[in-house]
Amino acid sequence: MEPTTFVLFGATGDLAKRKIYPALFNLFLDGKLPEAFSLIGLGRRELTDESFRANVERSLREFSRRQADDAAKVDEFLQAFGYNVLEIGRKEDYLKLLGRIEERENRLGLAPNRLFYLSVGPEFFETIAANIQESGLGSANGWKRLVIEKPFGNDLQTARELNRMLGKAFAEEEIFRIDHYLGKPMVQMLKVLQQTNPVIQAIWNNRNIANVQITAGETVGVEERAGYYDHVGAIRDMFQNHMLQLLMMTAIRTPHKSDAEQVRYKKKLVMEALEPLQKADVGASVVRGQYAAGTIKGNPVVGYTSEPGIAPDSMNDTFVAAKLTMDDSFWRGVPFYIRTGKRMKEKATRIVIEFKEPLKQSSGSQVEPNLLVIEMSPTDSIRLQLNTMDSRSKGEFKPVQIDIHSSGDELPEAYENLIRDALLGDSTFFAHWDEVEASWAWVQPILEAYEENIVPLHAYEAGSYGPAESDALLARDGYHWWFDAKPELDEAVAENKPLAHINQ
Amino acid sequence: MEPTTFVLFGATGDLAKRKIYPALFNLFLDGKLPEAFSLIGLGRRELTDESFRANVERSLREFSRRQADDAAKVDEFLQAFGYNVLEIGRKEDYLKLLGRIEERENRLGLAPNRLFYLSVGPEFFETIAANIQESGLGSANGWKRLVIEKPFGNDLQTARELNRMLGKAFAEEEIFRIDHYLGKPMVQMLKVLQQTNPVIQAIWNNRNIANVQITAGETVGVEERAGYYDHVGAIRDMFQNHMLQLLMMTAIRTPHKSDAEQVRYKKKLVMEALEPLQKADVGASVVRGQYAAGTIKGNPVVGYTSEPGIAPDSMNDTFVAAKLTMDDSFWRGVPFYIRTGKRMKEKATRIVIEFKEPLKQSSGSQVEPNLLVIEMSPTDSIRLQLNTMDSRSKGEFKPVQIDIHSSGDELPEAYENLIRDALLGDSTFFAHWDEVEASWAWVQPILEAYEENIVPLHAYEAGSYGPAESDALLARDGYHWWFDAKPELDEAVAENKPLAHINQ
Repeated sequence: MEPTTFVLFGATGDLAKRKIYPALFNLFLDGKLPEAFSLIGLGRRELTDESFRANVERSLREFSRRQADDAAKVDEFLQAFGYNVLEIGRKEDYLKLLGRIEERENRLGLAPNRLFYLSVGPEFFETIAANIQESGLGSANGWKRLVIEKPFGNDLQTARELNRMLGKAFAEEEIFRIDHYLGKPMVQMLKVLQQTNPVIQAIWNNRNIANVQITAGETVGVEERAGYYDHVGAIRDMFQNHMLQLLMMTAIRTPHKSDAEQVRYKKKLVMEALEPLQKADVGASVVRGQYAAGTIKGNPVVGYTSEPGIAPDSMNDTFVAAKLTMDDSFWRGVPFYIRTGKRMKEKATRIVIEFKEPLKQSSGSQVEPNLLVIEMSPTDSIRLQLNTMDSRSKGEFKPVQIDIHSSGDELPEAYENLIRDALLGDSTFFAHWDEVEASWAWVQPILEAYEENIVPLHAYEAGSYGPAESDALLARDGYHWWFDAKPELDEAVAENKPLAHINQ
Repeated sequence: MEPTTFVLFGATGDLAKRKIYPALFNLFLDGKLPEAFSLIGLGRRELTDESFRANVERSLREFSRRQADDAAKVDEFLQAFGYNVLEIGRKEDYLKLLGRIEERENRLGLAPNRLFYLSVGPEFFETIAANIQESGLGSANGWKRLVIEKPFGNDLQTARELNRMLGKAFAEEEIFRIDHYLGKPMVQMLKVLQQTNPVIQAIWNNRNIANVQITAGETVGVEERAGYYDHVGAIRDMFQNHMLQLLMMTAIRTPHKSDAEQVRYKKKLVMEALEPLQKADVGASVVRGQYAAGTIKGNPVVGYTSEPGIAPDSMNDTFVAAKLTMDDSFWRGVPFYIRTGKRMKEKATRIVIEFKEPLKQSSGSQVEPNLLVIEMSPTDSIRLQLNTMDSRSKGEFKPVQIDIHSSGDELPEAYENLIRDALLGDSTFFAHWDEVEASWAWVQPILEAYEENIVPLHAYEAGSYGPAESDALLARDGYHWWFDAKPELDEAVAENKPLAHINQ
């Protein structure tokens, strides 16, 4: 790997502590950082290098998936860490930063490759990008890369503005937009499964697939993010980015090549094939929900509008379910159902591919459909549901779930995968501009319909699977959401057992 | 289930002791025998009912898969057993038998349903069938069925003669020809898998399948059957019946119905689609082998012609490998490779379906083909080999074998499945005349080519996988036999570990 200086804006922030430092530390333990690697943390607070390192060390102890108990290893890791004060609007600070980076590069004879990681609010992106360019930080002889976190805009127009702005300082291939769902091991495995298994490829089309269901449920409510979330809602916070990215990863077919360019191109084709919504028709295929008071794992919780920081008359959405269809030869006739929400019964993220039903048996016995389940939560696993028969008591068919892949607890976190890819310059699992733009364009009529309040806002009880209309969305097509716990299983759910195994 | 009298010819023979009594006992334990069930054993020896029952009980103790240690249960089971002396050619004995059966039927008011099980040499079939008819045993008001064991003839002509003869006393639907490979649980599961899983159906064709390999290897030599085997060879003893039946069960597609008539019809279509051999071309697609001295699990063993009872110049085949092709829209272009032999390295029976290779990866990394493995021995299992990636150390693809079905030791034996089906009158898993005739017709040019010695007889070392020509048969098409142990794995093989797991 090439020598790299990792320039981290927002070094004292929450994301850095919880995700970025632990990810870097685990990459370090795996020998997956460049040999010549240094990180300069930037923030408004005055900190010495030493106290910054002490902060980082604390974050490792609290958040690293592998223990930071080998003092020598931790010390070696922290040697690469330095800190500079930086006021985002103050040009001199960028020049000081440049001086420090160049001094080290020159001293060690390293190529000036610089990765700028913006772990700050999007309102700072423009200023930082401009200053990187003006200060000369971005015009060295090596490569430069910009890593940014969502949100990438608040609607189609603001997203385009943001992109235009960033484009002044960075080319599209230099911009790595993190969507951490793309870093999840099972999402990456999904692509491997498709690419390396002709058996999977053969069934990955509308001749064999009846529908695709993508669920991302949270049990938490709005938590500390009320001020932000109340202006964003589930549609912007989850649907436009994570959920549509999961749809793209499911729908793309990449048999030939696995490089970033191919994946980018195929994802664009998927978004182009998605049939657009008209604002007036949003109500027919989109369910807008907001949680009311209810019970989560046995504990009563308040409704959304009673949450601290939320206006009592807020019409913000905390749940969205939608039916999407594609008009291309692979997916025509296969609905994609997506739902995501807060205060749902179960914390679960999974993609369920339901295959068309086998022809009816002459015996009339009922046979369950085949399913392929890609689960990111509560387990990391890929399962295939087939039908077999108990050889002891012949005659009855029964569905069995077969683990294709199941990795236990030792999996890298999404941020490890993504930071390593950014260090390698591989943008396969990042959100490219074409996709971001197309996602906002697809979502735009929904945003407007919500704004104009021409679709109903359905209340749903906290601890449920969302409004009844979400079930009706599938029932109209003769389907149902898979793996929703039956009411009588509440107790098992309260005990936090994985539902997929209960619900058979 | 209907009242049944089970009339067993050859009641003191080896098959009865080892297979039939234990199978009936296990069916009894499972409540799968008719409530009104009686068995009359027939043999030349004078035996009282009591000593016959004692013999049966001994066979249960020795051969039943479940222990016969509940004396009350065993007694209850044996109550149904009686014995009559019968000289196969002596008509009075049939009349006495009829008298005994009728007496019981009348006394208990049972419908006169009679199942005649011929566990005797084929030279007696004609006489027995004729006497059943003449004595009136077969002309009662209930149903009658004839269960017979292989061999069904010695070539096409003798098979036709046998069938014509049996046809005088029994209609085709009354004849149940046992091929015990069709009773094996995994063979029956194979059909369930196809019928109830659209995902499996979708890949079950020549667009997705590269080739099919069917292996039945034995480690034993000719054992006590020298006199019989030396006139039969692997081609008649295994290939014409068991191996071609496995081919049919693999090749049939039965999505709609699962009844015997449908299966019979589909198997006939498969045999009709098999491209026939010309005698002069047999050498190009059939490998004829005979074992030479060698080593089985570390012990030296003699060659075939040194076995007791075998002529030193015997040209009999103990191994056959063949390539078969079908000319229909499902299987055109998919070779079926079959091999079976004695004194092979491994006792194993399995069907391996190799799928076409995924398109080459841009990275150039090698990817193993997908496989579906239906194994009857050494394990009873159905496995799917797919490719995944280790999420910890990304980048390398690795094949994994996934158990679709694996049932442990508690499976019913083939004879339990088959006897129960015969009692129920379900001939799905029996060899029907159309298939038997077509199999002999397909094999006939090979028999003649062997007879005329126009194909070479290749020696192979005992403890090997057969002659090198068997490997060459596949290598010419760019394939290899799956799961053959590598030489360095001999030790593991000697320890009798299943090869499928070693050989990755």
